[in-house]
Amino acid sequence: MVSWDDGKLELTVGERTLCFPAVWLRDNCPCPACRDPDSGQKLKDITDIPNGLAVAAAEDIGESVVVTYAPDRHQSTFARSWLARHALGYGGADGTGEDGRTEDDKQLWLPADLDQLPQGSWPRYLADPADRAGVLDAVLRWGFVLLRDVPAEAGRVLEVAASFGFVRETNYGRLFDVRIEPRPANLAFTRRRILPHTDNPYRDPVPTVQLLHCLRAADDGGETSLTDGFAAARELRATDGETFQIMAGTPVPFGYTDQSTELRASQPLIQLSPRGRVRGIRFNNRSARPLRLPYAEVTAFYAAYRRWAELLARPERQLKLRLAPGDCLIFDNTRILHGRTAFGGTGGRHLQGCYADLDGLASTLAVLRREEKGREEKGRKEPEGRSNMTAIEAIGELFAGPGANDYLGEPVTIGEHLRQAGALAEAAGADDALVAAALLHDVGHLRSAPGVGHGEAGAQWLSQWFGQAVTEPVRLHVAAKRYLCTAEPGYFGLLSAESVRSLALQGGPMTAEEAAEFAAAPHAQEAVAVRRWDDQAKDPAVTAPPFAHFAPLLEALTRR
Amino acid sequence: MVSWDDGKLELTVGERTLCFPAVWLRDNCPCPACRDPDSGQKLKDITDIPNGLAVAAAEDIGESVVVTYAPDRHQSTFARSWLARHALGYGGADGTGEDGRTEDDKQLWLPADLDQLPQGSWPRYLADPADRAGVLDAVLRWGFVLLRDVPAEAGRVLEVAASFGFVRETNYGRLFDVRIEPRPANLAFTRRRILPHTDNPYRDPVPTVQLLHCLRAADDGGETSLTDGFAAARELRATDGETFQIMAGTPVPFGYTDQSTELRASQPLIQLSPRGRVRGIRFNNRSARPLRLPYAEVTAFYAAYRRWAELLARPERQLKLRLAPGDCLIFDNTRILHGRTAFGGTGGRHLQGCYADLDGLASTLAVLRREEKGREEKGRKEPEGRSNMTAIEAIGELFAGPGANDYLGEPVTIGEHLRQAGALAEAAGADDALVAAALLHDVGHLRSAPGVGHGEAGAQWLSQWFGQAVTEPVRLHVAAKRYLCTAEPGYFGLLSAESVRSLALQGGPMTAEEAAEFAAAPHAQEAVAVRRWDDQAKDPAVTAPPFAHFAPLLEALTRR
Repeated sequence: MVSWDDGKLELTVGERTLCFPAVWLRDNCPCPACRDPDSGQKLKDITDIPNGLAVAAAEDIGESVVVTYAPDRHQSTFARSWLARHALGYGGADGTGEDGRTEDDKQLWLPADLDQLPQGSWPRYLADPADRAGVLDAVLRWGFVLLRDVPAEAGRVLEVAASFGFVRETNYGRLFDVRIEPRPANLAFTRRRILPHTDNPYRDPVPTVQLLHCLRAADDGGETSLTDGFAAARELRATDGETFQIMAGTPVPFGYTDQSTELRASQPLIQLSPRGRVRGIRFNNRSARPLRLPYAEVTAFYAAYRRWAELLARPERQLKLRLAPGDCLIFDNTRILHGRTAFGGTGGRHLQGCYADLDGLASTLAVLRREEKGREEKGRKEPEGRSNMTAIEAIGELFAGPGANDYLGEPVTIGEHLRQAGALAEAAGADDALVAAALLHDVGHLRSAPGVGHGEAGAQWLSQWFGQAVTEPVRLHVAAKRYLCTAEPGYFGLLSAESVRSLALQGGPMTAEEAAEFAAAPHAQEAVAVRRWDDQAKDPAVTAPPFAHFAPLLEALTRR
Repeated sequence: MVSWDDGKLELTVGERTLCFPAVWLRDNCPCPACRDPDSGQKLKDITDIPNGLAVAAAEDIGESVVVTYAPDRHQSTFARSWLARHALGYGGADGTGEDGRTEDDKQLWLPADLDQLPQGSWPRYLADPADRAGVLDAVLRWGFVLLRDVPAEAGRVLEVAASFGFVRETNYGRLFDVRIEPRPANLAFTRRRILPHTDNPYRDPVPTVQLLHCLRAADDGGETSLTDGFAAARELRATDGETFQIMAGTPVPFGYTDQSTELRASQPLIQLSPRGRVRGIRFNNRSARPLRLPYAEVTAFYAAYRRWAELLARPERQLKLRLAPGDCLIFDNTRILHGRTAFGGTGGRHLQGCYADLDGLASTLAVLRREEKGREEKGRKEPEGRSNMTAIEAIGELFAGPGANDYLGEPVTIGEHLRQAGALAEAAGADDALVAAALLHDVGHLRSAPGVGHGEAGAQWLSQWFGQAVTEPVRLHVAAKRYLCTAEPGYFGLLSAESVRSLALQGGPMTAEEAAEFAAAPHAQEAVAVRRWDDQAKDPAVTAPPFAHFAPLLEALTRR
């Protein structure tokens, strides 16, 4: 079952014989001296591994294999299942050794191949993690998705981007408007036809995801087209290898200039991975600068460039869409070319767009899948779907987890912030329920992505153990900020920069009517109290008591 | 002097004979049918150029050459000087055809080569564009710069990043703290030695610029090291070509996982341009995931990896720095490896960092150089340094220029916003000076980078033609917002999201003392009036009168 010689380990798993070099095993040793148990990061550099490393012994113990190395007798214990999953050979999603970004990990398409449009609906996307995963997966797989029912209101496109990643701010701002301008700095801001292109070729790193949200459609024209650049590149390689090589091997200079900008980048029109697989498309003649190569190369380039452009422009490659108000296109700007027809009419077409990146989108999708798997496993164990941990175990786990060490734009971590808030409530002589509410007000941040209704989410989770005296102030502490901005002159001035920033997202100060309604609601005054401790509990010079300090109080509350 | 045959144009400039293919000339035709005069972008796609294009005639007229093409008789007029500057051959900064990002456009170094540290001082950087250009140039040339005297206060590193580009937000936030954490998600947040590495190898696109700002130094240890990865790669290629090829040709999988993140990327440790020049370094064993290649490739990779790591780790390559509070390192994360020694002591070391990108930095530097050139040329023409245009000419030019079409986060352009404000003042029956102040309150935004004291800058520029009745309300309109937030309950609720955002940067609401002082200042009430029109003048449904409507009023004011 297990054998070894100097340099390697051999192992039989089912029908397969797996073989691992000693140095590979050692570099991936999971012991706490080699890999940090908290972060999972490796503690050793490659130069820390002894020269002339060998496998001195290997022992099969149940589901694991213990490897002893020469010359230093270090030992690693590997789960057999882990070794089987990491068998050598070309790894990656489909055995190509690529990382999910090349043609090999995509579904290439012509419009005729699409039985139906990859699409989703914003309300369902928000409500259902499985739906959300499907929408994000479409961007990676097909290169685009049409998300419908995003309210046709200014700024909403930023919410869509924030739901899966981080907005890439550029000289066009965090958000840009695509509509007619009287003296446009970019042809996008005219009525003109825009041929299929990728955006921002003059930027390196180029933004890898683009969002376009339709607020107002044109009366006439302004149809959007999408082209799969990877599919076109595959055809080019198959039918005209010489042109493909010129496109992949010639850096083309791109540029953009305006009053405050001088961007330049040079990249080939087809970018390849080190293994020669298609990994990126840049195509945008508008922004191409004069190519400065020797005469013969220029003439060869132009002949090839025309052939590539003609192949891309074939009508059977253009997927035609008519964006309606509320439609938000999300697409891979390293793969999909987008264009539009000219438009007329008097209504005026108005899109808002922003940029983001594929790595963040893929990370969000991977976390959704991990959580889905977690729910499935948990579902099998606990059919009622309720936690069978005690409040202290479950909350203690959150305070000890990595999320508690995150910063949400404040000078202290969330964990420290919460413990400071609890301590402030305690020092003010608050009753147990209010101390608990102060301690737990941001527990929603510890359990899910920041910002997504964290007061509501936290209150709901806590309600399995605590009554409304704890959960309501948690639920209302964001509203309390909006209330205080209106009700109390000078309150706004006390907010941290981050708190001011989030206020704008939370709806800004309440109107006088909203404030009166809030003040009359049950638990509003407790929520205001929690809010004030919240605002103070951001002092990097303070060290709050540990979670254990609060455990007896929480335990007592859950027994009531 | 000028000759042609079917396919090309030949031209003698001084001693040189230049030769351009017809298709290259046509693709770069500067006529208004081929190139948009406003944006400078090309209007034609490559497929719009006729097949079988040729030069039918060429004529030398003074400083220009007029080219007539067959078959369609289109004509292009090129300045001889432009053709000379764009002579074919390997273009780019130093004739290599690269774009400023490869080894060929850098000064590679060992610490012994550095006569003095590339450095600058934040106050001088802010005050002097030439100093600013020098600091940014150092990052492109040497890969790093040490910016001193940045106040050792939380959040300042974001100001440094914003001074030359856009912060790249990541799962670590817009800003991250490097200090000891109780349960660190990353080894950076411990006392441990961190070997030289690049950051975020698990991200693609990787952040290309990193900033690290020292708030508190360690009592003992915690020394920073910098290594020029491009210089090491050059040596590797020269001394061990086989290892270099393996490092450049093998994608290595990197990963990072925490509660809300699952980032993955695969890239070679040495990234090459399509011409085979070194363009990027990734080196970070902490985050490397198991390499899954066939057995023979894995063993060859590990042998090469060790040699590359040993070469990088040589002491003569490590530049040692001890960051003091106020020091901010800015470095190229695609080139420079950074590390630190372990540290002890009780004081605790505290850095704050953030990420940005090289393209934005290079753009800012190019704009600084363009402006410097503009000042030099203007200095030659106008020794007094004062505009010799009339107010109407100079202001009219700004309203017609591309800056007036920018959006600063509002639903209308700056030009529309200003004209709406002027119209509101007029409709309210304000006197001429106050109408002018409303119309011109953001003129500072039209003349320089947004946000840099635009009230002050605008007032100063206007003072060459107008008295204080115009300039003071312009100067004070930002202060008026801070004043109204304090003095008038409910005012904050009227602000746009963008205005709330900028309020935080402007210092937030005034204290009661500041407000009293402001209210007593001359022209404060006029500034408040301008402010209210400012807040209203953001209506996308309104179309304000054109600039010409206000010209007679401005002209009358300048005559007084």
